[in-house]
Amino acid sequence: MSSDSTIDPHPTREVAGGTLVRSQGVSGPAGFRASGIKAGIKASGNADLALVLNEGPELAAAGVFTANKVKAAPVLWSQQVLTTGRLRAVVLNSGGANACTGAGGFQDAHKTAEEVASALSNWGTETGAVEVAVCSTGLIGDRLPMDKVLTGVTEAVHELAGGISGGTDAAYAIMTTDTVPKQAALHHAGKWNVGGMAKGAGMLAPALATMLCVVTTDAVATAAQLDAALRAATRLTFDRLDVDGATSTNDTVLLLASGASNVTPTQDELNAAVTAVCDDLAEQMMADAEGVTKRVQVTVSGAVSEHDALIGARTVARDSLVKTALFGSDPNWGRVLAAIGIAPIELDPDKISVSFNGAPVCIDGVGAPGARDVDLSDIDIALDIDLGLGEHAVTIRTTDLSHAYVEENSAYSS
Amino acid sequence: MSSDSTIDPHPTREVAGGTLVRSQGVSGPAGFRASGIKAGIKASGNADLALVLNEGPELAAAGVFTANKVKAAPVLWSQQVLTTGRLRAVVLNSGGANACTGAGGFQDAHKTAEEVASALSNWGTETGAVEVAVCSTGLIGDRLPMDKVLTGVTEAVHELAGGISGGTDAAYAIMTTDTVPKQAALHHAGKWNVGGMAKGAGMLAPALATMLCVVTTDAVATAAQLDAALRAATRLTFDRLDVDGATSTNDTVLLLASGASNVTPTQDELNAAVTAVCDDLAEQMMADAEGVTKRVQVTVSGAVSEHDALIGARTVARDSLVKTALFGSDPNWGRVLAAIGIAPIELDPDKISVSFNGAPVCIDGVGAPGARDVDLSDIDIALDIDLGLGEHAVTIRTTDLSHAYVEENSAYSS
Repeated sequence: MSSDSTIDPHPTREVAGGTLVRSQGVSGPAGFRASGIKAGIKASGNADLALVLNEGPELAAAGVFTANKVKAAPVLWSQQVLTTGRLRAVVLNSGGANACTGAGGFQDAHKTAEEVASALSNWGTETGAVEVAVCSTGLIGDRLPMDKVLTGVTEAVHELAGGISGGTDAAYAIMTTDTVPKQAALHHAGKWNVGGMAKGAGMLAPALATMLCVVTTDAVATAAQLDAALRAATRLTFDRLDVDGATSTNDTVLLLASGASNVTPTQDELNAAVTAVCDDLAEQMMADAEGVTKRVQVTVSGAVSEHDALIGARTVARDSLVKTALFGSDPNWGRVLAAIGIAPIELDPDKISVSFNGAPVCIDGVGAPGARDVDLSDIDIALDIDLGLGEHAVTIRTTDLSHAYVEENSAYSS
Repeated sequence: MSSDSTIDPHPTREVAGGTLVRSQGVSGPAGFRASGIKAGIKASGNADLALVLNEGPELAAAGVFTANKVKAAPVLWSQQVLTTGRLRAVVLNSGGANACTGAGGFQDAHKTAEEVASALSNWGTETGAVEVAVCSTGLIGDRLPMDKVLTGVTEAVHELAGGISGGTDAAYAIMTTDTVPKQAALHHAGKWNVGGMAKGAGMLAPALATMLCVVTTDAVATAAQLDAALRAATRLTFDRLDVDGATSTNDTVLLLASGASNVTPTQDELNAAVTAVCDDLAEQMMADAEGVTKRVQVTVSGAVSEHDALIGARTVARDSLVKTALFGSDPNWGRVLAAIGIAPIELDPDKISVSFNGAPVCIDGVGAPGARDVDLSDIDIALDIDLGLGEHAVTIRTTDLSHAYVEENSAYSS
C-alpha cells in the first residue's frame, strides 16, 4: 500500500468556507459521541463494532442506500426507520454483512437496534429501536454471532466519548480490508461543523461503493434539507468513485444533525459543507482501494451532456485493459480509444483527443508524436479525454488493476 | 496456459448433422486456398500475414463487424467492399491494428487490397480491389510498415495452397497473444463443408471480441443467406463469449461461399453448420483467453425473457470480484448475488438460487448448508443462477481474473 507513505494523515486545507481536517470525524460536531470496540465478531480480534450517538437537541437524519436489488438486512431495516426522518443512533459492525441471510438475518438487525435502544435508555438517553440505524459490512451469506454483537452493544454504549477519540475509535472499528481509517471534519470558524467517517476498499462503484459512511453536523436542519444535501453530495463524490464496477449489498451513507450549534446554514452552505467532507472521504477511499498502485482521475470533457460525460468517464474507468495498462505505467492510449468507443454516448471518433498527465497522446483520433514515451511512473495519473463535441465534463476517481487486487480478492473470502 | 495440456488438439465429434474436426480450417471446403507467411510486420519474426482465396465458382460473402464506434481502417474498408455481397479474397495481418491511424491508415488498407488484387491477377485469378476484404490486429495507433505488408502480399499469393496446410498456416499467421491456432471444419459426409479460423485471446466481449474470424463453405448460398446464417451464428456464439467486457476496434467475422460442392443447403442447415463451427471456435477462444486458469460457463435461467437472461449472465461474467473468487477456487456465492443484483433486469432477491458445478450454494436468496465447502479446484466451472421467475435461459462463456491476465496486459503494449 503506497498510500500509507504518500498521504499526509492530517492535512489541513480551506474548502467550502471552512477548515477541513482529517484528525476528527463523526464526534467532531457538537452533540455527538462515538465509540468503537472489539466485540469478537472478527476472527482477527480487531475492533468490529462502532456506535454513533446524537445527543440532540434535534434528531433529524437522512440516508442514501445501495442501488443493488439484493439488499442486506441492515439496509432494509435502516431504510425503514429512516422514513421517520429521525435517528438517535447508528450502530455499525464489520466482520459480517448480514446479507442473504433471510428472515432470520432481518430479525438479527432488528434485535441489534433494540439492544442499542435498551442500553442507551439504561444509560440515561431514552431511545426507541425505531431511532437506531444498523449498518453491517463483511462476508455475504453468514448469520452474525448475535451473542457477541449484543454484548458488544452494551460495551459500546459504555465507551461513548466525545471529541476526537470516540470518532477515531469508531472509524477503526468499521474497517474491513481498509488499511487506514478514514475520517474528515469541516469547521466553520467555531460556528458550525460537519464530520464524517467511511470505510470502503473494494467493490467501489456507482450508486455507492461497498461503503459505510456516517456524516454528522451540529447545524440546525430539517430531515428534508439533510436529504437534499446528502443526495447532492453523494452524486458528486461517492457516485464518482468507481474502482471495479461492483456495487455492494450493504452500501449506506447516513447524515445526522444535532442542531447543537444553533446555526442554521442555507441549503447551499449545507450542501457545500457535506459535499466537502464526502469528497475528502472519497479521495481517502480511492487512495486506500484494494490493490491500488495508481490513483487515477479519468475526466471526459467536451461531451454534449453531463450524462454523456459521466457514462464515458465511467466506461473508461472500468475497462480492465486500460486499468492493467496503467498498472504497467504504459501510456497505451489505443485502449482508451477502444474503451470510450463502446460507451453508449454521442461521439465522433475523429474528434477525440486524449492526454496523460497533460501530455497529448491522441489528437482528433490519431496518435500524437511521442505518445508512447509519456512517463506514467508517478502514483497519480490524470487521464483526460476531450470528445470535442460540447461543453460538459465529469471526473471519475478510479485505480489501476494490479496483482495485489487479484491477490486480495482471490486468496480470501471477503 | 493450462489449455495446451487439457484440450485435445484434434477432437472429432458429431454435430449439426456432420463431423467436426479441428485439424482443418478455412481451406477445408472445396474452392478455397489459404496461406500464412512471415512478412516481418511483427518484431518477433513470427508469421504475420494470411490470405484466404475463394476460387469459386461463386463469390458470395457476408460480414459482421465490431460495435465499437471507434473502428479501425480495415473495418471501414471491409464494411464498404462487403456492400457488394461478393468477396474473392481476405487478407489478414497481425502485428498492427491499423486503428486510430487517420486518413493515411485508410489509404494503407486500400493499398493492401489493391496489392492483393494485382498479385492475384498476375497469378491468373482476375481480381479487383473491391473484392478483397482486409483485417488487422495488434497494437492500436501505429501505421503499418507498408513496404513489408506489400512484399508479404506477393509472397502470400505465391504460397497459396489447398487442403489442410494452407488453412493451418493462415491460422498461425493471425495469432497475437493466442498461444495456439484456432480452426475447425464441419464435413457433411463428403457432400458440403464449412471451415473456419479465428484469433482472439483478450478483449473478448459482446458484439464480438478482439477477434478476427474467417469462415468458408463450399455450399451454394446467396449473400443474403450467408448474412442470415452469420448473424444467427455470431449471436449465439461469439456474442456470448465475454472475457473482460472490452470490445475491440477491429473485430471482424467473414463468411465466404464458393458453391464448389454444388449442394444447396436449406437456410436452417446452413445456420446450424455455421453456428457449429463458430461455437467450436468460441470454445477454443475461451480456453486460450489471456491469463485463463478457469473455463467458466455462467448460466442464468428462470428469467422472464432471453434478454434478461443474457444481461444477467453477462453482468455476472464481467464482475471482477466474482472472477477473482473463481481464480482462487473460492465458492463465494455472496459475490454472485451482489453481481446479479446490479443487473438491470427483473428479479426477486428472495427467489434467486445459485449452484457451482451442480452443488446448491444459495436457495431462494439464502445460503445453503455446506456452501463454503464446494470444491472448485477443477479447471471447468459451471455457475448456474436460477432467477425463479420465468422460462428463459442463456449461457455466457467467460474466464477467471488471474495474475496472468494482469501480467499479460500490463507488461506489454498489445
